[in-house]
Amino acid sequence: MGRNVNVAVLGIGNIGGEVARRIVAGNGAAASTGLELRLVAAMDRGPEQAERARIDAGLVSPDGHAIVDSPEVDVVVETLGGEQPAADLMIRALASGKHVVTANKEAVAKHLPAILAAARDGNAAFMFEASVGGGIPLIVSLRQILTNNEVLSVRGILNGTTNYILHRMESEGSDYASALAGAQELGYAEPDPTADVEGIDAANKIAILASLISGTHIHPDQVDRTGISAVTLDDFEDARARGGTLRLIASAVKEEAGGLTLKVAPTFVSNDDLFSRVVRNFNAVEIVGDRVGPVWLHGQGAGPDPTASAILSDVAEAVLAGHAATPTLGR
Amino acid sequence: MGRNVNVAVLGIGNIGGEVARRIVAGNGAAASTGLELRLVAAMDRGPEQAERARIDAGLVSPDGHAIVDSPEVDVVVETLGGEQPAADLMIRALASGKHVVTANKEAVAKHLPAILAAARDGNAAFMFEASVGGGIPLIVSLRQILTNNEVLSVRGILNGTTNYILHRMESEGSDYASALAGAQELGYAEPDPTADVEGIDAANKIAILASLISGTHIHPDQVDRTGISAVTLDDFEDARARGGTLRLIASAVKEEAGGLTLKVAPTFVSNDDLFSRVVRNFNAVEIVGDRVGPVWLHGQGAGPDPTASAILSDVAEAVLAGHAATPTLGR
Repeated sequence: MGRNVNVAVLGIGNIGGEVARRIVAGNGAAASTGLELRLVAAMDRGPEQAERARIDAGLVSPDGHAIVDSPEVDVVVETLGGEQPAADLMIRALASGKHVVTANKEAVAKHLPAILAAARDGNAAFMFEASVGGGIPLIVSLRQILTNNEVLSVRGILNGTTNYILHRMESEGSDYASALAGAQELGYAEPDPTADVEGIDAANKIAILASLISGTHIHPDQVDRTGISAVTLDDFEDARARGGTLRLIASAVKEEAGGLTLKVAPTFVSNDDLFSRVVRNFNAVEIVGDRVGPVWLHGQGAGPDPTASAILSDVAEAVLAGHAATPTLGR
Repeated sequence: MGRNVNVAVLGIGNIGGEVARRIVAGNGAAASTGLELRLVAAMDRGPEQAERARIDAGLVSPDGHAIVDSPEVDVVVETLGGEQPAADLMIRALASGKHVVTANKEAVAKHLPAILAAARDGNAAFMFEASVGGGIPLIVSLRQILTNNEVLSVRGILNGTTNYILHRMESEGSDYASALAGAQELGYAEPDPTADVEGIDAANKIAILASLISGTHIHPDQVDRTGISAVTLDDFEDARARGGTLRLIASAVKEEAGGLTLKVAPTFVSNDDLFSRVVRNFNAVEIVGDRVGPVWLHGQGAGPDPTASAILSDVAEAVLAGHAATPTLGR
C-alpha cells in the first residue's frame, strides 16, 4: 500500500476531467512512486460539469476558496485556465502549505514571482510542466541543464493549433481561412481562435521559459508578437523556393550585451532544420546551453492525455521532493 | 556562500578531466543550486595524467579504494569506463554512503541491480544520466514519464561514431572503410572501433533504458546485435529508392504478450521520420508512453563538454535530493 495523497482538481474540463478520472481509476501514479492518489474535491460550476466529466457530483463544488483552504487537501491541481481566479487560488493554496500543479500558462506567465513567493512562504512545491509543451518533458530538462549551463537561447513551436494550420497550408495548399476552418472542425482550434492564431498563447509560454533562463520575471507583454493570420500561400511559395517552410517560432535569445530578445513570429525554417519536420499539432523546443550545446525536444504539446500525464508527473514529484522540486527564477 | 560539496573524480581522461577542471574553475554548479563544488581527490595512474588533464598532481593518486573510502568525499564521479574496477569502486562508495555519478554505460548495464542495492544500503544517490545520450536529458525525461505512464518502447540513435560514419556514407558517397578512416582522423572513432561499429556500445545503452522501462535487469547480452561494418553504399542506394536512409537504431519494444524485443541493427528510416534527420555525431531517442504518446529528444551524445554537463547536473541533483534522486528499476 502506498502513501495516500489527497488531490483536489480546480476545473474539470478536458484536462482537469482527465486528471480527475485517472486518479479515481487508480491510475494517478505508477506503483514505483509509492503513492496512492485520491480525489477528494473538484471545483466546477455544478452537477452538469460533474456529469460531463464523469466525476461523482458529491465531490464537485463551485467554491474554490473552500477547496484550497481545506486541511484535507495535500495537492491542488489547477486547470481552470485564464488569469483569475486561477492565480489567486494558487497563491492562497501555496501560502497555506499545499503543493500546486498547474497547466495554466497565462496565470504562470503573468504571476510567476508572486506564485513562487507563496510557494516559499508555504514551503510547498509549485510545478508547471504542463503549462508549456504539454507532454514534452521540457521544464524538467531545462532545470537539469540550468544546474550548470548558461542557457543562451530557447526557441520553439509552442502552439499546436497554429502548427496544424501552417502544416495544412504547406502540405495541402489550403489558404489560411480554410486551414483554420479545418482545424476548428477537428477541435484543434477554438471557435474564437484569437489566442492561438495571434500568438498570445505562444507569447505566454515563451515568457515562462524566458523567466526561467534569465532569472527575472518576463511578462508576456514584453514579447514582440506577430500571429499567423496574415500568412499567405505566396509566403509558403517563397519559403519553398528558398529551400524551407514557415513555422510559428517563439524565441528568447540572450544578447551579448545582456538582455533578451523575445519574439513570436512566422519564421522561415530551412529543410535541414528539425523544426521544418514538426507536423500536425506537434510541439518542439530547442534549448541551447553553453556547455551541453543544442538540445531539441519534440512531442504532443496539448490534448487531455499528454497534458494530464505531465500534470500527474508533477503531482508525484511535488509530493516526493516538496518545495525543492519548484523551479527557481535564477541561474 | 553556498554549501560545500567535496567531489572525487575517478579517471581524469577526456570526460573526467573536463569535470575536474570545471570544478576547480568554480564552474561545477550554477549559483542557483546553492552548491560550491570542490575537487578533493582524483584517481589516475600518476603525475603524467594529472599534467595532461591540467589538474594539481597533489590531488591525483592511483589508489581508488583509498579515495572511495575517504570520509572527506561527498560525491564520487566515476569516469574510468569499462566494467572493472569501476563497478566495484562505485558499489563500495555507495555502500559507505557516498553519492555516485557515472558516465559508464558498460558498468551500469552489467551491474545495475548490485549498484542500486548498494545505493539503498548506503542511502546514497546513484545517477547515470551521462551514460546514455551524453548531454540529452534522457534519464530525467524517462523518469518523469514513468511516474504515470507505461513506456511501450524506447528507440534511439545512441552511438555518435556510427551515426557519423553512416551519415558520411549517405551524404558523401564514401564507402564504409573510408568513412571509418575519416571518423578516426577526426577523433570520432577509436583506433580500435569495434565497440562502436559492432553495436556493443549501443547495446549497453539500450540495455540500461530497457531495464528502466521494464523494471527488471536487462543484460546487454540479451540484445540482438548487428553492427554497421557490413553496410554498403548499395544498401544506401536501396534505402534512397525506398524514400529513406539507414541509421543504427537501438530499440527496446514491449510485446503484447509481455517481454521485450531488444535489438541494435542498421535500420531503414523513411525521410518523414525524424531519425532520418539525425546527422553527424548527434544522438536521438524516442520514448513512447501509453499516455504521453511519442516524446523525441535530440542532442550531443558524447564529447567532454556535453557529457561533463550531464555529470555535473547529476552531482547537483544527487546532493540536493539524496537517495530519492536515484532512478528505480520498476514501473
